[in-house]
Amino acid sequence: MAREEPLLAQRPASDRSSIQNEEEEALLTGQHTTRHTERRSWASWREIGMFAWAFIATVLVIVLAAVYQHKAVEIPHHEQSKNTTWGPGGKPTGKRNVIFMVSDGMGPTSLSLTRAFRQYRDGLPVDDTLLLDKHHIGTSRTRSTSSLVTDSAAGATAFSCGLKSYNGAISVLPDHSPCGTVLEAAALAGYKTGLVVTTRLTDATPACFASHANLRQYEDLIAAQEVGDHPLGRVVDLMLGGGRCHFLPKSAEGSCRGDDRDLIDFASGNGFTTIQNRSAFDSLNGGEDASLPLLGLFAHGDIPFEIDRRSQNEKYPSLEEMARTALRALSKATENSEQGFFIMIEGSRIDHAGHNNDPAAQVHEVLAYDKAFAAVLDFVENESTPTVVVSTSDHETGGLSAARQLTNAYPEYQWLPEVLDKASHSGEYIHAQLKEYLAGAGNDASASEKKSWVRKHLIKDGFGITDATDDEVQALLHPEPQVSPQNLFTDMISRRAQVGWSTHGHSAVDVNIYASSSKDAWPLVGNNENTDVGSFLAEYLDLDVGKVTKQLRDTKTGFLNPYDWMGHPLGMGVRTDGLDSYHGLFKKRSEDDCGCGGSH
Amino acid sequence: MAREEPLLAQRPASDRSSIQNEEEEALLTGQHTTRHTERRSWASWREIGMFAWAFIATVLVIVLAAVYQHKAVEIPHHEQSKNTTWGPGGKPTGKRNVIFMVSDGMGPTSLSLTRAFRQYRDGLPVDDTLLLDKHHIGTSRTRSTSSLVTDSAAGATAFSCGLKSYNGAISVLPDHSPCGTVLEAAALAGYKTGLVVTTRLTDATPACFASHANLRQYEDLIAAQEVGDHPLGRVVDLMLGGGRCHFLPKSAEGSCRGDDRDLIDFASGNGFTTIQNRSAFDSLNGGEDASLPLLGLFAHGDIPFEIDRRSQNEKYPSLEEMARTALRALSKATENSEQGFFIMIEGSRIDHAGHNNDPAAQVHEVLAYDKAFAAVLDFVENESTPTVVVSTSDHETGGLSAARQLTNAYPEYQWLPEVLDKASHSGEYIHAQLKEYLAGAGNDASASEKKSWVRKHLIKDGFGITDATDDEVQALLHPEPQVSPQNLFTDMISRRAQVGWSTHGHSAVDVNIYASSSKDAWPLVGNNENTDVGSFLAEYLDLDVGKVTKQLRDTKTGFLNPYDWMGHPLGMGVRTDGLDSYHGLFKKRSEDDCGCGGSH
Repeated sequence: MAREEPLLAQRPASDRSSIQNEEEEALLTGQHTTRHTERRSWASWREIGMFAWAFIATVLVIVLAAVYQHKAVEIPHHEQSKNTTWGPGGKPTGKRNVIFMVSDGMGPTSLSLTRAFRQYRDGLPVDDTLLLDKHHIGTSRTRSTSSLVTDSAAGATAFSCGLKSYNGAISVLPDHSPCGTVLEAAALAGYKTGLVVTTRLTDATPACFASHANLRQYEDLIAAQEVGDHPLGRVVDLMLGGGRCHFLPKSAEGSCRGDDRDLIDFASGNGFTTIQNRSAFDSLNGGEDASLPLLGLFAHGDIPFEIDRRSQNEKYPSLEEMARTALRALSKATENSEQGFFIMIEGSRIDHAGHNNDPAAQVHEVLAYDKAFAAVLDFVENESTPTVVVSTSDHETGGLSAARQLTNAYPEYQWLPEVLDKASHSGEYIHAQLKEYLAGAGNDASASEKKSWVRKHLIKDGFGITDATDDEVQALLHPEPQVSPQNLFTDMISRRAQVGWSTHGHSAVDVNIYASSSKDAWPLVGNNENTDVGSFLAEYLDLDVGKVTKQLRDTKTGFLNPYDWMGHPLGMGVRTDGLDSYHGLFKKRSEDDCGCGGSH
Repeated sequence: MAREEPLLAQRPASDRSSIQNEEEEALLTGQHTTRHTERRSWASWREIGMFAWAFIATVLVIVLAAVYQHKAVEIPHHEQSKNTTWGPGGKPTGKRNVIFMVSDGMGPTSLSLTRAFRQYRDGLPVDDTLLLDKHHIGTSRTRSTSSLVTDSAAGATAFSCGLKSYNGAISVLPDHSPCGTVLEAAALAGYKTGLVVTTRLTDATPACFASHANLRQYEDLIAAQEVGDHPLGRVVDLMLGGGRCHFLPKSAEGSCRGDDRDLIDFASGNGFTTIQNRSAFDSLNGGEDASLPLLGLFAHGDIPFEIDRRSQNEKYPSLEEMARTALRALSKATENSEQGFFIMIEGSRIDHAGHNNDPAAQVHEVLAYDKAFAAVLDFVENESTPTVVVSTSDHETGGLSAARQLTNAYPEYQWLPEVLDKASHSGEYIHAQLKEYLAGAGNDASASEKKSWVRKHLIKDGFGITDATDDEVQALLHPEPQVSPQNLFTDMISRRAQVGWSTHGHSAVDVNIYASSSKDAWPLVGNNENTDVGSFLAEYLDLDVGKVTKQLRDTKTGFLNPYDWMGHPLGMGVRTDGLDSYHGLFKKRSEDDCGCGGSH
């Protein structure tokens, strides 16, 4: 439209000259006048026509460009983020951020269960959905090289390196050699990087982004790499979560390290500010006053389940709070930089609720994750740098089903969210209460006193269950071998809600993929291999993880058995051999049949 | 571009007149000449500029329109079908077909299970997928008005009418009044219509498209409506499937009707050709020689499971064969018509394998469905009329999980497809063999003879299981009350494969949506309510199902309790009252809270 005004402004001059010409010619000959006037008129009309044509075409260009802009991104149900700039060949260009969210252990049923629970609890319409539902763009296949059922380590390696590996692998390949991660590549390329979790920062998912280990159990080693004892130097700028115990020397109270290294001290030497409690977190002022590098260790191990955290005066920050703070801090730290940031934010304990077969804990974990997702989208909305958000799970946990047959009789078609709504605590919390009671006040209580205490203080007050049978209470106090009372507690609630579980481990179902917009994350629309998610993260930032792999291998050579790639001896009572050639018990043909060799 | 030529052709005339003017004016005054030439030149440049502007803008319009056309369809992973022509407002226009496929009871785990089974069986790479996986575009939420766990009737009503109703409803609303279906609306608008299933043609899913009943159990009533005893007259042109028994008079062998109506005779009177066996099906010559209306009833009840059908000399047509034949027949019947066709093709028995908790039967049913989907895409590829294919499930069945913990010890992460590969029959088939044996040769056998026969002929030959325990064999011969030996058979195979189930009924997990192309089915990309699928089917064909609803209500008035909408008395030993106001046992608040009232 800018071109229109000067052209319009010139029209009067043009008209005047035309009139003057006619007057002058009329002085010469009457004959000419008519013919000339006709010619003038034709030229004038032609000009008007041409202008109209140009004007209409320009309007059409503007309309079409606007429609295209709108339509190209238009996949309904998905709100739009700030547009990524795409270069030739469909590659994103310019400064940009990646926010990668992991809903550990959240399978398709977790969503159906939580959505219906919320509809019930809040009296919402039958078609009310979670925010995640509105951003659903696809699904991810999760098998690892060693089994059809992956663990979180192989799952996170698929995301961090974009490559399949064996269950237990922390960004190492089946040959035990390290693979460069998207976070490492981002750090080397000048991006700021972050990790936010609700479990230990040394647990498999965060570990895979900033460290390498032949087995996920090497959490002492992982902690050291995360704070900068890493062949590439310090690669993480911000970490918020739990898992303090692996950073404290063996001699310190609350340590779970096998050695006397003080990693908080080491981190300080590497420039880290370490904060360890709620008030220190609050003093970050939502990230405004955070200085990087920053290490936030808010719990000895895991941050409590959301269902329990709420009743502890919010002594621990929520996933949403940590996400908001981390994003603001990273955004501020990169505001004058040519590069943006990469962050991984994990709803770590959806998985734990699955392992515990605890449906009440699970719905609250998923709701907390949905809230964190909302906070992330809110950040993106207000962030000037184009930012893509991708959210997915590494696997499903528990074999959760929103239906459960309780007897041999053909079941009614239903499950009962009201049962979950009555619970005010997780099985984990209730079980801790039981242990505390039995070790303390209940130590000298009679059998019947114990039963009545458990029935009132745990089953009724904690779970809202008023119809516990004597057998159930008896089993809690005298469980079978290998059975934790915690699982008996969660079974009581699962049965009453008619919610089913098939395992305390993981399952092989495909998991969902969500994104800020299907336009920015278009390569992940539809059904994907989990490694496609990892590849997308690196490709969006135009990072070469292969180059990082080479750097890692050039830097350290001692990563083959019997030493791990950092030169530490393998063993430590954990099986490490054979994992890379174990392709699942189902394998009857030659190893190559699985195609694993080709997938790296 | 068409406007460009005449405008270019006029330029020489314009130039000439300009030169003539200059010559004439030069005769009058030298002074004028320079100024005038400048003016002339300015006008000329202005005109050239205007033309260039118009030309460039026009080229931009064309480029943008082309890019827009291309970009709007661009979602990788999905092959493109022949393009639908979209009118203003994004509505499809021109002759077109809808192929709606239903994978009854197929949940997310069914896909993961079948994909891995096929990778194992055929020695395929770790990232090999089903064809369906490549066409995944979204998911569907399935709850009905009466429960969080839907049945197939409420599920199919969501597809046929685009409206939620209660479990058991055959295209009637919670007030028991009929709702117009996409198939009826298509028939009234001049489309040809078809139904292809592997279960009874009177079962809930097909019933919902061509009939109305307050309860799905009224299969006699449903059969009559399907062959034209319907207030709108005959609405279906082609039906292929099982369920012959509801079309035969009570007195005939193999009938399951409650009355003496001969619906095959009635169908003939309505113009139908009825075929009832494989050779008659073969004589259709893949649909080339089919004449409509056509009724194909290939089984008394269900067509056998695919795993069993293969070993019966393919006495029954497969879903793929029926789909190919039906599509060719409908395509031929509409080749000279202004309207195309609507067809619903159902892989009906994925659901039955789920009800039976039979993982071996299930993977073969899903593979058969994937084959049928391939045949449908193949048809679309070669069909000149633009055709959209949408495939989804009504619900999940069985609470299937690809992982199962067998003991109290923490489980290994795995499930074992080789166990399913050893099975050559379904539990249903094996159970029928057992019943036949016990009623015949086994009648006089000793307990140990029976056990050894079952162990060899059923467990080993049928299921490939060689390690059955004595307890297992004993339980098969002497099952607990309410336990079918069929379920014991399938439990043997499920446990060994480490595949879990939570119910013999349905579950509430969201199900997948697939389409020929995400462009044609773009409103269904992402997470949808099941009614959105129904709305899409009608909208794609620009059909007004609301108008059909009105026609149905105007035609019949006696559909309120205690009579159903056809004037037949309700009752028949099936609960019909209260279904519409039963909003699930979980409902503690007022009825309006569920928002059900607003969803119709």
